[in-house]
Amino acid sequence: MVDLSRILAGPFASMILADMGADVIKVEEPILGDESRGFGPFKDGFSAYFISINRGKRSVTLNLKDRKGKEILKELVKRSDVLLENFRPGTMKRLGLDYDALKSVNPRLVYAACSGFGQTGPLSQNGAYDLIIQAMGGMMSITGEPGGAPVKVGASIADLTAALYTVIGILTALRVRDQTGVGQLVDVAMLDCQICILENAIARYVVANEIPGPIGSRHPSVTPFQAFPTRDEYLVVCIGNDRLWQRFCQAIRRPDLEKDPRFEVNARRNENYEVLRPILEEVFRSRPAEEWMKLLEREGIPCGPINTVDKVVSHPQIQAREMIAEIDHGSLGRIKMPAFPIKFSLTPGKVDRPAPRLGEHTEEVLVGLLGMSREEVAVLRQRKVI
Amino acid sequence: MVDLSRILAGPFASMILADMGADVIKVEEPILGDESRGFGPFKDGFSAYFISINRGKRSVTLNLKDRKGKEILKELVKRSDVLLENFRPGTMKRLGLDYDALKSVNPRLVYAACSGFGQTGPLSQNGAYDLIIQAMGGMMSITGEPGGAPVKVGASIADLTAALYTVIGILTALRVRDQTGVGQLVDVAMLDCQICILENAIARYVVANEIPGPIGSRHPSVTPFQAFPTRDEYLVVCIGNDRLWQRFCQAIRRPDLEKDPRFEVNARRNENYEVLRPILEEVFRSRPAEEWMKLLEREGIPCGPINTVDKVVSHPQIQAREMIAEIDHGSLGRIKMPAFPIKFSLTPGKVDRPAPRLGEHTEEVLVGLLGMSREEVAVLRQRKVI
Repeated sequence: MVDLSRILAGPFASMILADMGADVIKVEEPILGDESRGFGPFKDGFSAYFISINRGKRSVTLNLKDRKGKEILKELVKRSDVLLENFRPGTMKRLGLDYDALKSVNPRLVYAACSGFGQTGPLSQNGAYDLIIQAMGGMMSITGEPGGAPVKVGASIADLTAALYTVIGILTALRVRDQTGVGQLVDVAMLDCQICILENAIARYVVANEIPGPIGSRHPSVTPFQAFPTRDEYLVVCIGNDRLWQRFCQAIRRPDLEKDPRFEVNARRNENYEVLRPILEEVFRSRPAEEWMKLLEREGIPCGPINTVDKVVSHPQIQAREMIAEIDHGSLGRIKMPAFPIKFSLTPGKVDRPAPRLGEHTEEVLVGLLGMSREEVAVLRQRKVI
Repeated sequence: MVDLSRILAGPFASMILADMGADVIKVEEPILGDESRGFGPFKDGFSAYFISINRGKRSVTLNLKDRKGKEILKELVKRSDVLLENFRPGTMKRLGLDYDALKSVNPRLVYAACSGFGQTGPLSQNGAYDLIIQAMGGMMSITGEPGGAPVKVGASIADLTAALYTVIGILTALRVRDQTGVGQLVDVAMLDCQICILENAIARYVVANEIPGPIGSRHPSVTPFQAFPTRDEYLVVCIGNDRLWQRFCQAIRRPDLEKDPRFEVNARRNENYEVLRPILEEVFRSRPAEEWMKLLEREGIPCGPINTVDKVVSHPQIQAREMIAEIDHGSLGRIKMPAFPIKFSLTPGKVDRPAPRLGEHTEEVLVGLLGMSREEVAVLRQRKVI
């Protein structure tokens, strides 16, 4: 596939496809390349950010404003199943490389465009950052402490969700193409995807006419189901039903709470949340988190630690699932990053090739795939087309 | 496809497939059905929660503990491309219906299992709630205010991310099956998926040996790039580079800031964040959010409102993208919900059939698909197999 995408949403999508075996040819602007090559943190001058979302791809530099550059892109498109781009809508048209132009070159092409607001609508031409989409799409309005300042999801969830939907769109369009012989345009907007993952927030508004706000770590309708501070660290406890509540009261040696009519069933506990919370906070403060978790797990009560990233990376379950890959990046040595999370029994994904240096595979692709001579490539390089 | 999944991650995945045209046969326990039929908010006794993630599916009741129930499931599997389940690992084996048992019935079957911790590893048998995975997987450690209580992402992002990866796994395995004739097991764990969306948090830890913490609405390395309070509501502003900073200073009529060496380039602004923040807070408090946005947008400065769910649903861009579907649910009338976010030019998804009542299609499927007689179905109903 030809991948013109930069920064996050597009490259995250093409990384998933590369992990599953796609030959991703990342086409980058000569000289600077993907902007995220300049994003920290750095190691020996290489962006760890870039490296962690561009593994397994080949990099080809190409000036898409140059006539010859456009020609080469079309040659690549002729030989590709998929083209992915996440430019601001209109950019590809201005370059003469939009879907209408490219489908005449390759009618079987699946053309995926991932953008902030989509290819249509009044805001389609606006640029978008993850933060803006999290804010406009409602996610920030339901994340954070009640009455507190707005908080964003710690990771760029608007970009990443759009990436996952884009992969779904590409795979579906490929299957349709296998059956019909015809490709199509797949248009994915970060904002559209964001509202699809608001989950029950929309149902609550539409049906109960309630505008959901942020509620910290709590479940909106189940109690107790949240984070509690212990003597040392926080832990989360999920008392999902009344049977668990009874077991929980016994586990924490508070049979009085079990018998208290204010807390007898979930609906009552939820009503009396402000009474119950300080009581449980006092209970949990009496021991360290680890001790509580051993005690609760013994009774089969769902609970867990709030892991920082260092603990996540070394967690036994993450290790057992081989979810941290180590990729050899030549001069940088071995770099750890999240591995591929879909475990296929027959055709497992693989994460073994590092992210490319800018233009590392230009000659390989132009000579090997397009059949150019080394002399032609040298001329293109001199002319700054590549 | 046969869909044995309940509550959120599985049903969200099969909803996406149903939106794209799959015939999803949702197999539910007789009498109670999918637990989420009992989750609020309710309208006229129907769960709005259930309705919003089970549209377009058919519901068949089946007691999988009954010998005849297992037989019927195998008949459905024979005629299906995909089986999806999100039971705790081990449950399907105890029922005699795990992948090994079902692939002998249909070697072309794609069997997708979505679980909290995956089919392998020391925690595989543990149950998981979204909150536990958000906590254990590191997302909560990077979300919230610095020094504040832990905060979860407002939506069930651990479930939903696993759902999206599960769809990717199913579509990929189907394509492999189309090419090779053989199905496979697709094993997706919420915890594995969660660490894949930590984005640069893992790179920062692995390369810079920094353990990322929560930073409210801020960007970790770009300033100003966050939410600010205005005279009325908050807004977000994203000054992604130094050129934008200059335009921004002019737009807010503070040329003094542009010339201030403490704020000249992003690296300096980031260092002097605690000096700059209160200055900008004071600036923004002087006008209401809407006025600021008009002024900033005129200068091409990326910014946006922090929309609550009511504003999201009625937003002109969301409307223009037809991202709110209205589905007629018979007695409930028309119910709004997020539409399908992947816009295919040739084979658009469709969102038009409501979520099924429990067992609404049992007879239709048993008679129409499996060729049973109405008498046989009546006997099964009497025996409580369906």
